[in-house]
Amino acid sequence: MILERIEKPSDIKKLNKKELNILAREIRDFLIEKISVTGGHLAGNLGVVELTMAMHIAFDLPKDKIIWDVGHQSYTHKILSGRKNAFDNLRKFGGISGFPKTSESKFDVFNTGHSSTSLSAGLGMAFGRDIKGENYRIISVIGDGALTGGMAYEALNNAVQIKTNFIMVLNDNDMSISKNVGGMNEYLNSIRTADGYTNLKKMVNNSLERLPYIGKPIIKSIKQTKNGIKQILIPGMLFENMGITYLGPVDGHNITALLRVFEEAKKVEGSVLVHVLTKKGKGYTPAEKHPENFHGIGAFDIANGIPKSVSKKPTYTDVFSKNIVELATENKNIVAITAAMPEGCGLLEFKDKFPRRFFDVGIAEQHAVTSAAGLAAAGLTPVVCIYSSFLQRGFDQIVHDVCLQNLHVVFAIDRAGLVGADGETHQGIFDVSFLTCIPNMTLLAPKNAKELKSALKFAIDFDGPVAVRYPRGIAYDSLNEFESKIEFGKGEMLFEESDIALFAIGSMVSTAKNLREKLKSRGFNVSVANARFFKPIDFELVDKLCKNHKLIVTMEESVINGSMGEKIKAYIKDKDCNTDVLNIALPDGYVEHGDVSLLRKKLEIDSDSVLKKVLDRYEKIKDEG
Amino acid sequence: MILERIEKPSDIKKLNKKELNILAREIRDFLIEKISVTGGHLAGNLGVVELTMAMHIAFDLPKDKIIWDVGHQSYTHKILSGRKNAFDNLRKFGGISGFPKTSESKFDVFNTGHSSTSLSAGLGMAFGRDIKGENYRIISVIGDGALTGGMAYEALNNAVQIKTNFIMVLNDNDMSISKNVGGMNEYLNSIRTADGYTNLKKMVNNSLERLPYIGKPIIKSIKQTKNGIKQILIPGMLFENMGITYLGPVDGHNITALLRVFEEAKKVEGSVLVHVLTKKGKGYTPAEKHPENFHGIGAFDIANGIPKSVSKKPTYTDVFSKNIVELATENKNIVAITAAMPEGCGLLEFKDKFPRRFFDVGIAEQHAVTSAAGLAAAGLTPVVCIYSSFLQRGFDQIVHDVCLQNLHVVFAIDRAGLVGADGETHQGIFDVSFLTCIPNMTLLAPKNAKELKSALKFAIDFDGPVAVRYPRGIAYDSLNEFESKIEFGKGEMLFEESDIALFAIGSMVSTAKNLREKLKSRGFNVSVANARFFKPIDFELVDKLCKNHKLIVTMEESVINGSMGEKIKAYIKDKDCNTDVLNIALPDGYVEHGDVSLLRKKLEIDSDSVLKKVLDRYEKIKDEG
Repeated sequence: MILERIEKPSDIKKLNKKELNILAREIRDFLIEKISVTGGHLAGNLGVVELTMAMHIAFDLPKDKIIWDVGHQSYTHKILSGRKNAFDNLRKFGGISGFPKTSESKFDVFNTGHSSTSLSAGLGMAFGRDIKGENYRIISVIGDGALTGGMAYEALNNAVQIKTNFIMVLNDNDMSISKNVGGMNEYLNSIRTADGYTNLKKMVNNSLERLPYIGKPIIKSIKQTKNGIKQILIPGMLFENMGITYLGPVDGHNITALLRVFEEAKKVEGSVLVHVLTKKGKGYTPAEKHPENFHGIGAFDIANGIPKSVSKKPTYTDVFSKNIVELATENKNIVAITAAMPEGCGLLEFKDKFPRRFFDVGIAEQHAVTSAAGLAAAGLTPVVCIYSSFLQRGFDQIVHDVCLQNLHVVFAIDRAGLVGADGETHQGIFDVSFLTCIPNMTLLAPKNAKELKSALKFAIDFDGPVAVRYPRGIAYDSLNEFESKIEFGKGEMLFEESDIALFAIGSMVSTAKNLREKLKSRGFNVSVANARFFKPIDFELVDKLCKNHKLIVTMEESVINGSMGEKIKAYIKDKDCNTDVLNIALPDGYVEHGDVSLLRKKLEIDSDSVLKKVLDRYEKIKDEG
Repeated sequence: MILERIEKPSDIKKLNKKELNILAREIRDFLIEKISVTGGHLAGNLGVVELTMAMHIAFDLPKDKIIWDVGHQSYTHKILSGRKNAFDNLRKFGGISGFPKTSESKFDVFNTGHSSTSLSAGLGMAFGRDIKGENYRIISVIGDGALTGGMAYEALNNAVQIKTNFIMVLNDNDMSISKNVGGMNEYLNSIRTADGYTNLKKMVNNSLERLPYIGKPIIKSIKQTKNGIKQILIPGMLFENMGITYLGPVDGHNITALLRVFEEAKKVEGSVLVHVLTKKGKGYTPAEKHPENFHGIGAFDIANGIPKSVSKKPTYTDVFSKNIVELATENKNIVAITAAMPEGCGLLEFKDKFPRRFFDVGIAEQHAVTSAAGLAAAGLTPVVCIYSSFLQRGFDQIVHDVCLQNLHVVFAIDRAGLVGADGETHQGIFDVSFLTCIPNMTLLAPKNAKELKSALKFAIDFDGPVAVRYPRGIAYDSLNEFESKIEFGKGEMLFEESDIALFAIGSMVSTAKNLREKLKSRGFNVSVANARFFKPIDFELVDKLCKNHKLIVTMEESVINGSMGEKIKAYIKDKDCNTDVLNIALPDGYVEHGDVSLLRKKLEIDSDSVLKKVLDRYEKIKDEG
């Protein structure tokens, strides 16, 4: 095993060409074996094995710095930079992250997770390096999918300012998570398939030179138009037009070719883009055939790529998926928008059934939100499906384009709350705070699968901006006996007693139910209300609870600053009411990766932790009372 | 006067060419005359007089729909669509807005204000129109400056999906507010000056056709490379590469040429970009010479373009400007970043003195924030200067790239709070809510000019993400005797008495001072504390105030949801303390345009309104107590 000899970072530089090819195979086997047990991002990582190896050889790490856009393709980088033995605990609480983390290794120079940030970060670092008069290379590796994000273009537009070295590696696998879309993709396609260019170049040169009288004027004329001749001869003219040197395309699975192009790239003064063609899932047949299934995956059987023990229970995404199709069947005005996540958001069936009413705009949350505003202005009912943490990128558009005009745009916010193994960058814990500060916004969260259905119906029938947030994972399927009609700004009483009231919303309603049972077994009288609306909050229901409860416990899976609980506590302060309020929410901090149930315990929002807090608080109330 | 004959929208269609040219002159005179009195955006509007007229002639309004990117160049559109007589009250409370507003006219189809949204909105409307099987044209007018925003690129990337008509008008004046920057601008420059293209096209065509033997293979070969021939012949190849038909460039002050190109554009199936060259300030010499001075301007003297009665008192921007230069002189690590606002943010002197440490990234707030994170990661101290309402567009980047890594990026948030005449889209009223929900963020607001200086020093010396917010307009210059050192998370006591405590921050400290005098004259004992920090809040100081005050009045110029006041009220609820809390903040709503002092009255945050609320509340406390 050559991989066994790769202990410290520079070890790879000692290998010859034959050994490198063997090592690539071994790394693939290692990745497949480890991820088949722990789960993780497989297809993307298999695609960049040679690319990563070549970068570790061509560059001088950690002096030179590699920034991985999105970052879930950094596994080979982690293997080669001394973290090979940590892969059994990949993405587990306390184990290594599935993304680059500066706190994990000096070989990780910038944390990533969201798309399209690497060029901006790299460019900033390059500016910084130059100002400090330091001398190292900065390499940002960005996928063609990430290139659909406007932020990447903002950086490309700015890259012309760099007069020293800044290397952008375009890892082009013609995929984002799903099939890539848009004009830029069509452009890249024309390069990918442009065998004709080389022939053309020769032919035009030869022909023009041979032309009597006319040849030279043409050449001169072409030269006068500055980029004219390049435009016809160089595939990456779009980049060259922006002042960026273009190298490629190069076969991303040929280490020799990669090493050659990086040597070229190192010589360029200014920004250079190296266009590398890779294959997602490379070297593992099931992943090559269906890379979308091996983007992020749980444990699977190596022999056939079939996921192990997948729960048959529907997730919230499944429930959304089914219901949005039903609603759209009845209501022809419904259109769906996703930012490169048709599978993740559960829109595949919608796409199949209503292709003209389905829009995948690429990794472009800003455009997704504002084009939805345009659709609403044109009289349709757009449903924008975005994960909570990615919706952060559409904040200004929600404020400025949707809510200011009070347009009826429906936001289906998936992965709201804790998401688990993906960690800090993907936890959906800020949406309540950033959405409830926006005027005209309505935000609700269903307690279970059945209520998600009626929440979607409510949102579709509403008039104005409205968002429904629901968590990652299995949809809660209890409390189905409570099915009161959803009314604007109204919660529902589930259990009406006295002493302690649990005022819970979304995922925390099930926690409240469990908590109630634990409290009951200790002899307490416990009411449970399903708050339903983060905005507007049902303060009438709060008033009612104030009357005959000593303690109201607010429960939500979102950060405390800007939370519902904060607002309820402030509200009750103003009331002539002695009811005490205990806020259960996520603390003011980022949440690392790990199993969600474990994270809930660590963050003390699981029913046992809340039980303890409630008992403590109740003890104090008694003492005071 | 031909302008007098333009009463209803279609009147312009009756004019002949000569009359149109006269009308253009009359509209310019009208704009200059009106804006010289009311103030407003002059240079941009003078640049699009003919363009707007041509669109009103070429298209069938309001059936066809024009979306104005940013929107402050829509004055001629307003004149031609029946709002001519409203210009005396332009941008005044109750008068017409300086931006398109759907509530103002059916000729305004989408509200704008922030940059780079028009393509997304227009594309959404085009999708909607097609789905509904309706038949009208959608025209998005976008400046070359706005084209530096990533969102515009996201839309361009998506525009290839439209198979019916969608017209994008690139209003190219080689300016955003300031001089335009970046690779896209260099590309447009190459088109602007590309006289050679037309000659080249003729020559290549003629030559190739005449070539025996070789001519046809070349033509064939060029055709095989799909876009090859176009690439050499068409200036707008960058757009064509993305699947967008390109027409232009055309002289934007030649109505005949404009009408011709729009007729062409109407025939295109799919997305078409019409490249129009205009001159900012056209027809008014002072504005042609210094368009940046006539971007947004107050009342001025028509004869020479000199602003009337400009206050000599320094604004907060002036104070920032002076101090950041002083700090940067001492500290070589300081770099400054602006998103196309070197003048507005007060960075001109910094730019002059430290050109290598100054970055204007174009209208690209996302990239501004993340490249700042890169600069911080490289060991520098970046100061990102962005207006409050524009910082909304960098929200995800602050969460994901700056705060998650706890990087020392300083945010200088200008125009925080009410901004006045620019209205809804520009009020800086959400930053407190969206920044304080982010972990690791520190947010402070100085009470006066002197404290802005020390707040900036504090921020520079800090380690971690830190933001300083300060309002538009004259810097408050009283209370200079209170100059306690700024300590992390600590407020300062200004007047220490009892009964009523005013816990104010930023611009509201001066209001609190005035309020205190009014309360004192009514016999109350009044303490005033300068909160200084929105995050972390000085709860120790709150505790202290609780001890000997019956009422704490929190005062801030920011929306109530997610406010400091809400958090203080919630905090005191938990305390063994009977102190009542009154929150003074902005209501949960958008704030229209108008004079700031008038808006403060309407929103009841001026000292008289607060006085009334305090007296009411105190009355109740007495009754209860």
